[in-house]
Amino acid sequence: YKNIKIGGIAKGSGMVAPNMATMLCFLTTNADLKSEALQEILEDSIKDSFNMLVIDNDMSTSDMVLIMSNGKQKCDPGDFKYLLNYATRKLAQDLASDGEGATKFLTVELSGVESKEKARTGAKAVVSSMLVKTAIHGENPNWGRIAAALGSVIEFDFDMMDIEFKGGPHGKSAMILKKGVVFDRDSAREILKTREITIKINLNSGEKKATAWGCDLTPGYVKINAEYN
Amino acid sequence: YKNIKIGGIAKGSGMVAPNMATMLCFLTTNADLKSEALQEILEDSIKDSFNMLVIDNDMSTSDMVLIMSNGKQKCDPGDFKYLLNYATRKLAQDLASDGEGATKFLTVELSGVESKEKARTGAKAVVSSMLVKTAIHGENPNWGRIAAALGSVIEFDFDMMDIEFKGGPHGKSAMILKKGVVFDRDSAREILKTREITIKINLNSGEKKATAWGCDLTPGYVKINAEYN
Repeated sequence: YKNIKIGGIAKGSGMVAPNMATMLCFLTTNADLKSEALQEILEDSIKDSFNMLVIDNDMSTSDMVLIMSNGKQKCDPGDFKYLLNYATRKLAQDLASDGEGATKFLTVELSGVESKEKARTGAKAVVSSMLVKTAIHGENPNWGRIAAALGSVIEFDFDMMDIEFKGGPHGKSAMILKKGVVFDRDSAREILKTREITIKINLNSGEKKATAWGCDLTPGYVKINAEYN
Repeated sequence: YKNIKIGGIAKGSGMVAPNMATMLCFLTTNADLKSEALQEILEDSIKDSFNMLVIDNDMSTSDMVLIMSNGKQKCDPGDFKYLLNYATRKLAQDLASDGEGATKFLTVELSGVESKEKARTGAKAVVSSMLVKTAIHGENPNWGRIAAALGSVIEFDFDMMDIEFKGGPHGKSAMILKKGVVFDRDSAREILKTREITIKINLNSGEKKATAWGCDLTPGYVKINAEYN
């Protein structure tokens, strides 16, 4: 990927005049690709990055992602796709981590699913759930809320379900549910004390997976957004 | 409607073992109607009652509404429908008013819409919006969040939009937006100090309307649901 450059800047997760949380992302590159190719690769990249990011379920009517290229560097579209996916995911993660009032950065990895679309829908439902978000805030390894959030949008076999908590990028893991059987909650609770938490869910019924990002729901979020302005 | 009786009891809006917010509603009647007719009227009644109720966007996988009849009273299906709609709406309103941590009972009336389905979708989006719910908690007449929540799910002409706040069942009203033009916020703010608040939105582009019920989002909600149990 030598010489291919991608610059990215994004804002969001906060109040913007006039009172909307608006996500804006500007990407620049030197990749020599036709604008149709850039557009197609960008749209594809967004599906598994910005569209998998949920702060408060309040979609702004003016979210925007733009990419601009000066076309100075010859580039294989496949290489560019790989690099752009890295950039957009990193920016989506940073937005989640900066969520209003957030004290925890939450990643939900849903695997073992029959289709990509089902995996995306499920992962987003878990990361969006106010009950999951408050449980994470309370460092409460509440697998029932995770299963319920998933069950509200997709069908799955509970007896095949695994749920694991992982703390930090290189942190410990704890299995809380294995094939529908409940494991030790105390070690999971220890893990939830870290700031970066990953919920790994395996439905053991397919090969597809998806990842969504979000944050905990806190009294700080309510306070910021209840203020008169 | 003499002699036709409907009894109703519902629970929800709170934590139920094992950690799910489960809405249960049991209805009884003496109406002499075939079970197919009862089922059809009930399903229809639910569309504009329980299905228009949002506490925290966390649909339980085990919500349930049951109706039982002893068939002792001759009854016109149209009459029964009218009575049942009253009962299910009242129960849905009570559930919203009892929402976890709620300090405000919120009604969203969306009118002037081209289709019933669009009206339902729009009203539910406004009552579900975390930004609207926190604004109501903060007694903040933030019309921008209402318009944005609506704009995230349906198309409408902003220049035709009216937004009015009404306080209490017999309370005062204040227009905050009239055909896209912003009115005095201070009188709207006074109204938001009451416990029961109605947001009336008129899109002035059709004859259909829908009503949704909910509550404010408070630090109390976060506290209840963050607790380890």
